Amino acid sequence: MTTWTDRQMASIHKMLNPHSIAVVGATPRMQYGGRLLATALNAKDRVRVYPVNPRYDEIMDVKSYPSVTALPEAPDLVCIVVPYHQVLEVLQECRDKDAGSAVIISAGFSERGEADRQDLQDQLGAFARASGIRLCGPNCLGLANVKDSIWASASSRMSEGLGGSIGMVCQSGASAFGPFLTRAVDNGIGFSYIISTGNEADLDFADFARYLLDDDDTRVIAGFVEGFKDARKFKAVAQLAAERGKPIILIKIGRSALGAQAARSHTASLAGDDARYEAMFKQYGVIRVPDYDAFLEVAQLMAHTPKPVKPGLGVVSHSGGISSLTADMCGYAGLDLPPLSQSALDRINDVLKGFGWAANPADVTGFANSEAFPEIMQAMINEPEVGTLVVASAGADRQAEQVIELRDQSDKGIVFLWTGSRAATAGLDKLKAARIPVFYLPASLASGLKQRWDYHTWREQRLMHDFATAPATTASQQQTTERLQSLGRRTLSESESKALIAAWDVPVSREERATSADDAVTAAERIGYPVALKVESPDILHKTEAGGIRLGLQDNDQVRTAYAAVMANATRYAPEADISGVLVQEMVSGGVEVIVGVAYDDQLGPMLLFGTGGVLVEVYQDVALRCCPITRPEALEMISEVKGARLLQGFRGQTPMDVEVLADVLVKVSHLAVNLDGSLAELDINPLLVLPAGLGVKAVDALAIFK
Amino acid sequence: MTTWTDRQMASIHKMLNPHSIAVVGATPRMQYGGRLLATALNAKDRVRVYPVNPRYDEIMDVKSYPSVTALPEAPDLVCIVVPYHQVLEVLQECRDKDAGSAVIISAGFSERGEADRQDLQDQLGAFARASGIRLCGPNCLGLANVKDSIWASASSRMSEGLGGSIGMVCQSGASAFGPFLTRAVDNGIGFSYIISTGNEADLDFADFARYLLDDDDTRVIAGFVEGFKDARKFKAVAQLAAERGKPIILIKIGRSALGAQAARSHTASLAGDDARYEAMFKQYGVIRVPDYDAFLEVAQLMAHTPKPVKPGLGVVSHSGGISSLTADMCGYAGLDLPPLSQSALDRINDVLKGFGWAANPADVTGFANSEAFPEIMQAMINEPEVGTLVVASAGADRQAEQVIELRDQSDKGIVFLWTGSRAATAGLDKLKAARIPVFYLPASLASGLKQRWDYHTWREQRLMHDFATAPATTASQQQTTERLQSLGRRTLSESESKALIAAWDVPVSREERATSADDAVTAAERIGYPVALKVESPDILHKTEAGGIRLGLQDNDQVRTAYAAVMANATRYAPEADISGVLVQEMVSGGVEVIVGVAYDDQLGPMLLFGTGGVLVEVYQDVALRCCPITRPEALEMISEVKGARLLQGFRGQTPMDVEVLADVLVKVSHLAVNLDGSLAELDINPLLVLPAGLGVKAVDALAIFK
Repeated sequence: MTTWTDRQMASIHKMLNPHSIAVVGATPRMQYGGRLLATALNAKDRVRVYPVNPRYDEIMDVKSYPSVTALPEAPDLVCIVVPYHQVLEVLQECRDKDAGSAVIISAGFSERGEADRQDLQDQLGAFARASGIRLCGPNCLGLANVKDSIWASASSRMSEGLGGSIGMVCQSGASAFGPFLTRAVDNGIGFSYIISTGNEADLDFADFARYLLDDDDTRVIAGFVEGFKDARKFKAVAQLAAERGKPIILIKIGRSALGAQAARSHTASLAGDDARYEAMFKQYGVIRVPDYDAFLEVAQLMAHTPKPVKPGLGVVSHSGGISSLTADMCGYAGLDLPPLSQSALDRINDVLKGFGWAANPADVTGFANSEAFPEIMQAMINEPEVGTLVVASAGADRQAEQVIELRDQSDKGIVFLWTGSRAATAGLDKLKAARIPVFYLPASLASGLKQRWDYHTWREQRLMHDFATAPATTASQQQTTERLQSLGRRTLSESESKALIAAWDVPVSREERATSADDAVTAAERIGYPVALKVESPDILHKTEAGGIRLGLQDNDQVRTAYAAVMANATRYAPEADISGVLVQEMVSGGVEVIVGVAYDDQLGPMLLFGTGGVLVEVYQDVALRCCPITRPEALEMISEVKGARLLQGFRGQTPMDVEVLADVLVKVSHLAVNLDGSLAELDINPLLVLPAGLGVKAVDALAIFK
Repeated sequence: MTTWTDRQMASIHKMLNPHSIAVVGATPRMQYGGRLLATALNAKDRVRVYPVNPRYDEIMDVKSYPSVTALPEAPDLVCIVVPYHQVLEVLQECRDKDAGSAVIISAGFSERGEADRQDLQDQLGAFARASGIRLCGPNCLGLANVKDSIWASASSRMSEGLGGSIGMVCQSGASAFGPFLTRAVDNGIGFSYIISTGNEADLDFADFARYLLDDDDTRVIAGFVEGFKDARKFKAVAQLAAERGKPIILIKIGRSALGAQAARSHTASLAGDDARYEAMFKQYGVIRVPDYDAFLEVAQLMAHTPKPVKPGLGVVSHSGGISSLTADMCGYAGLDLPPLSQSALDRINDVLKGFGWAANPADVTGFANSEAFPEIMQAMINEPEVGTLVVASAGADRQAEQVIELRDQSDKGIVFLWTGSRAATAGLDKLKAARIPVFYLPASLASGLKQRWDYHTWREQRLMHDFATAPATTASQQQTTERLQSLGRRTLSESESKALIAAWDVPVSREERATSADDAVTAAERIGYPVALKVESPDILHKTEAGGIRLGLQDNDQVRTAYAAVMANATRYAPEADISGVLVQEMVSGGVEVIVGVAYDDQLGPMLLFGTGGVLVEVYQDVALRCCPITRPEALEMISEVKGARLLQGFRGQTPMDVEVLADVLVKVSHLAVNLDGSLAELDINPLLVLPAGLGVKAVDALAIFK
């Protein structure tokens, strides 16, 4: 993986940790240029800040320079707040001055939806890559090194003492320095860096995420992405993040067409097919969240709790109603509250003396606010099946301190469900300061804890199995592909399509081509009755509609009659079609029909689809998707994800089907998809018949289309 | 509907609007009795408050009485905070004193899970009904008449100036006066009443809801219910609420087994089968919410926005990222943001002058905080397709005032998505004070608006069609039922079960019973080939497993052979079975199999189930549920709710099936379910074959079981 260079990382490092900042377009007025200068000047005891504006000698009591050229040193970071048509000129000065990096606040580029502005933006990107002066923006609000309190942001909002473990990267600057920042301040959640990337002419989310992977102060990377500039790069960084164990938490626009359209209209970025992105996130362990609060709460949870050793939760509250609702939401999210052992019950009952309920969830009434509360929490967290303790209460009296003390001694995660006012101070502020993850709603808590468990489970699997790689194309595969491409048609016939997949070892039904009724009979005798006849033509995709299929033919006569009928029907259906005869095919029965497909996504590359066959796939949309290639465990995961695939597993006393071979075939097709990336447009194996266990699978029909 | 009496309502009225309150068990210490007295004394300028405790002459500077008997008047409300075993005695004094009502704070009743405590609680309920002194509790935290600032709560939390339009009824007192109250204070959301009902020995959620329906200050009834004491009473109040147009908003425990179990263990109330409750809520227009914030936000939304005339939303924000996320979540929730007309676009562009994006959602950049913002909002809200305006911003400068002004002039709903700090004051406090519904997260906003639209759409339908009623049982239905019951078996055979449903006009396949091979042949000739043979025995429920079914028999010989085989198989399968012969049945084909079932829920009464037939119903759990009886529109709704029922609608060019007759049959079965409530245990029509449009439906198999 050579996507990122040391030089690029060095430029980002200067951008995010500047010793000197120039603000080109600084003004005394508190508009973009003025605000950016003002935020930068907050760090003037540690960072040399240079306003650049020929119209002033001094701005905000700091000497102003007429140009970048005139600066007394090569600045690590140049912040550019000039009209869009002057940006490139400023960048050229930066190159001549040997500046380290640049942030372009200026708008007026691709987001305008005009070709010349897009061109101009492309020039910025090209300039950055050529010069090595890497760019953030344009059309962004800048960034902040929160941990060292160095801000270079054109937003009016900034906050001291907000240091923390979350590296945040947002395309939308107004979101980064708006709801995300203000809610983080509300919730006492801190950042290592805040980066708004705007139009991403050069550096994008993945590049900054790559940098943050190396940053020891960043434990979690949290992003708000409207559309990926390069989703393959994102996959690469997600893969690295999995290896390093730094979760990526993401809000991604595109759950609905409305959102995708809104994002496209104002950022010129495409949200893409959401089901595919959802599949990719699952495959790469990306934690997708819906909203500002979940974004911050889950990020804090991931940053400040250890990996749980068990999925079970222990829940303790001062209230029966609160503990019921918490248990209800946890159960609904798919989490478990294991029953407590007798010794734990005894220990808690010793404290409760007949009040409340020793159970999981425990309703310990006023004892939640007593000196005996640690004893109760200890009894629960020491349970072997309890992986994480949840305290659902309002932190009165000593409670918050007791929870912090327990967290400091325990190697299990402790999470607080705060049931009091969000505006409370006493207990809540202590929890925030101690970095205890705090949730405010049972449903959010449950969802966050489920995502945490799923992430760690996923990563454990990942570290065991590694990400998939596809083997190189073999000579014979290459030969088959070339032969089929040399036919000069995009769409292959059924037998050609099957020849293609057979080259990747996908078993296909036994069949022969026949160009006359006599040939068909001979073929049928060789294959053995019963047989099927199917019209063979690359021009007829819907053979059934064309009357081009006859099934279950039992003898020579039936084959002769069927041949005549199929040819006549097909000619009537598509008089212009190139009909090369029929395919005589063995009748395969006693299996379960599934479909396997390959599509190529502009952003995500080859995608593998698996679903139940027939009419069901359309009615229930019961399919699993993955980016190719896939591993065998991923293939099995796809199969278990599809509800209709329960029919394969010996459902209702039926014969179990050959899921093992099906999994192998899914992997092989994913390799084919990767090997043919660039030349294949799509592939559908429909149906693939999965036979009883031990008998394998057979592709009964297939359709391949080249680009 | 005579569930509620005037006398009962009068007692509740005194309870909630007392002119005099006695606190039995009042103490100077700030425990339950002391806290309750203290909250009551806050209203002492308007309400006469009497501490009752023989151990004190005076408590909190108020004369204390030795007993209820000794009080100088008959108190409207007696709050009881004495040990559980003294409660009944106090109540007897209350009766003798002619008190108006009582709230029992004391715990130690059914929630202990002990039979004698349950008995004691039952005595309280019986006493209340006999004496007319209606009871709230026991094991509750009391109540508050918030609008008049009269509190009788044993919680330490109370709040002045929290008056509003939401009547809140919670079983959990610690939730009512905990998260609900504190978050309401946080969010500036006000109540008419807060009532914690505890164990509901007498009055339950439905009774208080019934009272609140008559209260002009209550616009919305919001409840937190762990388990219903009487779900049929709830249905009755929900029906009245629909007529009055007062939405019921509910958190109901039981989405998961964990929650149901937790609720049962500490309240002794059963949460019930959640899918059934979910169906009932849908049918009765109850708005179910997951959590504290949604509870308050949706209640406020329902209370303070008019019914939308169009589903479309207009969304305007200062930020592209915020407007994209908002649009995304709205689309995901199933809402629409209609495109703006050219004139609206022109009007907005006149303001924006090249900045931002005039569209829906509109990203109006800094103009959201300018004097021109009302012009933009006007342009959007005046659009005929925009039913509701959403302002997604942080209320800087004049923005909040502008929004309030617009709301005051407009007959469309205006909702704010607050993107700033929850701790903000300036703009946010103005919005709260003006009762503008405020959401803090795009996903919550979208979900709330969707529930609002669904509620109003549902209610419109409801007012048009009225709730379903079942006709009385006819003489012939009565006769059939009695005949079948007189067989003395709980489980009916296939033909008996079909006779039962046929009495309610459900078409059944043509069939005859035969007790010999000869009879079977004669019957087959009468019915016409092909036929099916099925073993006829009330003891064999799984005929296929028993080898007791032969399909597609074409002639007399096949019938003879099949008869012998079926009888032999059945005898081998169940040697003890009472086998009365076979059923010779017409082969019905060319239809789509569905299942129709009836089950009786202890709480909800007869429930109707509709689903796709065969293996699918188990794999996809693709079923619709309703409480019986149902209306024809509800039947059609059930059909459209089931995904697999798309196969009935002419899916993929197939013949459309007779959905009209299917809907009629669903209604008829729902009548049967009501008519046989008390005697029937369950009914399964599986499969019901839905034939092509115009040809009706046919029950091919059925199984009825009496109690």
